Amino acid sequence: MTDLHTSPLNLPAWSQLATLAKAPQQHLLEVLSEGSLRTQRMTHTAAGITLDASRQRVSPIIETALLDLAEQASVGAQRDAMFRGDAINLTEDRPVLHVALRGDPMHTGPWGTDVQADVQRELARVCDFAEALAAGTVTGYAGDAITDVVNIGIGGSDLGPRMASDALAHLADPAVPGIRVHYVSNPDAWALWSVLRGLDARRTLLVVSSKTFTTQETLTNAASAQRWLTDSGCPTDQLGKHLVAITASPAQSAKLGYPAERTFLFWDWVGGRYSVWSALGLPLAIAIGPQNFRAFLAGAREMDEHFCTAPLAQNLPVQMALHGIWNRNFLQMPTQLIVPYASRLVRFTPFVQQMDMESNGKRTHIDGSATGIDTGPIVWGGLGIDGQHAYFQLIHQGRHSVPVDFIGVQSEDTPLPLAATHHGVVNLNLRAQAQAMAEGRSLEDTRQLLLKSGMSEAQATAMAGHRSFEGNIPSSILWLDRLDPQRLGALVALYEHKVFVQAAIWRINAYDQWGVELGKTIAKQMEKTS
Amino acid sequence: MTDLHTSPLNLPAWSQLATLAKAPQQHLLEVLSEGSLRTQRMTHTAAGITLDASRQRVSPIIETALLDLAEQASVGAQRDAMFRGDAINLTEDRPVLHVALRGDPMHTGPWGTDVQADVQRELARVCDFAEALAAGTVTGYAGDAITDVVNIGIGGSDLGPRMASDALAHLADPAVPGIRVHYVSNPDAWALWSVLRGLDARRTLLVVSSKTFTTQETLTNAASAQRWLTDSGCPTDQLGKHLVAITASPAQSAKLGYPAERTFLFWDWVGGRYSVWSALGLPLAIAIGPQNFRAFLAGAREMDEHFCTAPLAQNLPVQMALHGIWNRNFLQMPTQLIVPYASRLVRFTPFVQQMDMESNGKRTHIDGSATGIDTGPIVWGGLGIDGQHAYFQLIHQGRHSVPVDFIGVQSEDTPLPLAATHHGVVNLNLRAQAQAMAEGRSLEDTRQLLLKSGMSEAQATAMAGHRSFEGNIPSSILWLDRLDPQRLGALVALYEHKVFVQAAIWRINAYDQWGVELGKTIAKQMEKTS
Repeated sequence: MTDLHTSPLNLPAWSQLATLAKAPQQHLLEVLSEGSLRTQRMTHTAAGITLDASRQRVSPIIETALLDLAEQASVGAQRDAMFRGDAINLTEDRPVLHVALRGDPMHTGPWGTDVQADVQRELARVCDFAEALAAGTVTGYAGDAITDVVNIGIGGSDLGPRMASDALAHLADPAVPGIRVHYVSNPDAWALWSVLRGLDARRTLLVVSSKTFTTQETLTNAASAQRWLTDSGCPTDQLGKHLVAITASPAQSAKLGYPAERTFLFWDWVGGRYSVWSALGLPLAIAIGPQNFRAFLAGAREMDEHFCTAPLAQNLPVQMALHGIWNRNFLQMPTQLIVPYASRLVRFTPFVQQMDMESNGKRTHIDGSATGIDTGPIVWGGLGIDGQHAYFQLIHQGRHSVPVDFIGVQSEDTPLPLAATHHGVVNLNLRAQAQAMAEGRSLEDTRQLLLKSGMSEAQATAMAGHRSFEGNIPSSILWLDRLDPQRLGALVALYEHKVFVQAAIWRINAYDQWGVELGKTIAKQMEKTS
Repeated sequence: MTDLHTSPLNLPAWSQLATLAKAPQQHLLEVLSEGSLRTQRMTHTAAGITLDASRQRVSPIIETALLDLAEQASVGAQRDAMFRGDAINLTEDRPVLHVALRGDPMHTGPWGTDVQADVQRELARVCDFAEALAAGTVTGYAGDAITDVVNIGIGGSDLGPRMASDALAHLADPAVPGIRVHYVSNPDAWALWSVLRGLDARRTLLVVSSKTFTTQETLTNAASAQRWLTDSGCPTDQLGKHLVAITASPAQSAKLGYPAERTFLFWDWVGGRYSVWSALGLPLAIAIGPQNFRAFLAGAREMDEHFCTAPLAQNLPVQMALHGIWNRNFLQMPTQLIVPYASRLVRFTPFVQQMDMESNGKRTHIDGSATGIDTGPIVWGGLGIDGQHAYFQLIHQGRHSVPVDFIGVQSEDTPLPLAATHHGVVNLNLRAQAQAMAEGRSLEDTRQLLLKSGMSEAQATAMAGHRSFEGNIPSSILWLDRLDPQRLGALVALYEHKVFVQAAIWRINAYDQWGVELGKTIAKQMEKTS
């Protein structure tokens, strides 16, 4: 890999893009007047997800230059190195193999047989344990079947399974009692207490998730929850019946008394923010059942296959990454808004926020030199339509230029008599916002409109500024044909690979997170001196 | 008010600040070596809230110039005009009187007797109704006492009461059945269904909140929820027993069949995002009880009094506004991160996000001219500690400069045996992050540290870039002495006034929201043509 660039500034396509960015460009209102041909050219589908990128501010010549950039940056070679298990996490000297976690159980991928065997063994253990819980054969200290699982973990040990449990909540049939899964991440006492106070200790299982099993926040919550168990009558020597550990450091969890048969493993080549596919997905597997969990993995695998085989010009993660680079590095847009228009995706934006910002919030190239260019954007947002009644005002009329990912779902599966009406409102608004942001409404058009509405010349002129919209806001729409385990898996993998491609072009390491270190160091110093 | 500036660019202090921003400035690491004198000078308390702004990147000379800016922009005169009820919302020709909603019930404020009488009448009706619900005297079509309230509203009709209900959830004693309050905002079918499926129609009250009572999303959810009531057996002529309207357009709600005695009013001089103090606070009053609701109002009133009387140099909202302007307009930081370290404040950031971005996401001065300067920032964030395991990586090491508001609580009231341990972890981390962000760790210090840890020269040099931190990230800490209704009211009012002061200096109208219009217009066009 020594022939790889260290800064994309040295790549010819980068210079070309810089030149293109300085040239006058059409407003999206004109660009879109090209009509359906542009939409067709810029719309691609994979794994049940359709990307419509026609509202990005790219002309065909820019599209070509962006593809050249991906080629010159050896994105394909870097991708293959990841799948092969090369130690692409150079600052920690490790491979990055979350893709192996969702590999085909029947065929070993390029990561090899050792990884394959480990992955399939733990996956089987996770699924078996989820099934045992569902069957009521896992019991607490007094012999009662477990009914409630509390996942205690933070960051990557929380956001992934929690996001997916919400997104697939419709699969937990409320008519069947099943197992309720709760998530506690914050070490603030209220976070734990507000969950525990509603539970019966005899029927509660604590799942403690931590890669190192030294995470202070998680161990604080775990210790406090164990205290609650014993205060509620659980004999100390029976605590093991209520404890599960998920970790890459089983020696550490064993030291704290977590039984080996209830310890589920992952490995140092799985980053926390890429770990929902591993044993850390256990709470998700419990919430939606092992079969749905496997479908979630299969959806991600479909996206992996697309990423590895589709030409760059039709490759969803590559396209999204390139548009992001165009917006970030050439149109100077520092943030990326993600707005899902399906309420079950309520935690999708915070999930991607972590994945993207912890991965690409770096200012150092892989070789240790400072990046002379901007890297990962600030990712923010939240549910659509709600956003329209909140921060969209600033998107339309503030002094920022914010690219948007809209995420919509084409079908509707909620058993409500008027579900189709609801769905119509939601998707109409999604389309209308993407269109409004692109088109805007000029000062003069606004003035004419106000005159027509009966305002005087003076009034219309005074108000036109307040009621006009610059438009020209780039956006993409991701349409899921359904919101099911497979599409969700594919959607998450899509964003993972988008982040990978951007890091590959920027030549930064997306898989370390040294930035969390300084806060910890200073906290320790303060603790000693206080 | 005709003598007011139209652009702060014309104010002498603005030019002075621009000059100061260009001069070389000390790194915060050096600035903070001044020690406790600086902290004392830059720490101020009001209404149970202490602002420690010592980590902002301002020197005494910059502080003075910022105060000059506030003086020259007539912030005091503009504030008095708001409290007096002048039509400061010029594009809609209305006063802006949310402050009257929390006025002293015993003394009429500068807004006059008419407003006072309206406010106190509706407040009494809200409190009486909340009490009747708690007493079990409000019954459904089959004579059962109401146990569940579903608030249906979006944006300002949702975020305020929902945020506050979460923040004060400890006041709803789980041992006493009481009334459960649910919130539905998104028109996606799942959002409504996932709430209704757990409820008994005979015991459920729908509170439909909409200023205009024409909000499409809210009416869609309301119609669907009414359908659920009738499908569950409620005779059509008994529907009124299950309906409450909160609106500034009672004629409109009456047309849709909402009974007058169950219609609670607010007025066109209350903006949705400033309405939690009005009848729109009914779900909150139900959740925490009328006495606590009145304490919430009283806390905001304390902050109002502080805002109106404290010298600008010790005035919390003025200080926060000025630091925000320094960061936004002179240090060119486009976003503002808000991170509460108390899990009950889980919705505080989205709440302020709406309030700030819908208010100051404008690019037009009050006189209709385009602002030549940047206005409201992108507000984002979420719970602390969780953030440390997610996007803080980018704050520490990404290519952005992001000012932070940390929000902490000094006392801990959760009835958990180890609550003090939890609380120690939380507040230690808050302090450590503020410190780490300010100080950073230089390349050379990092290299030395790595050498000491046993790395070779070559390794340490290669790794230093990956493990150093620029620091110099400005932040403020807001300490609440308790998280109770009064402090929460004061905290919300603090941010309201911060937004006001910034708008007053930028000379934009914080109280309209024309930016939501274009999306609606295009949605209507699409609806017709589809």
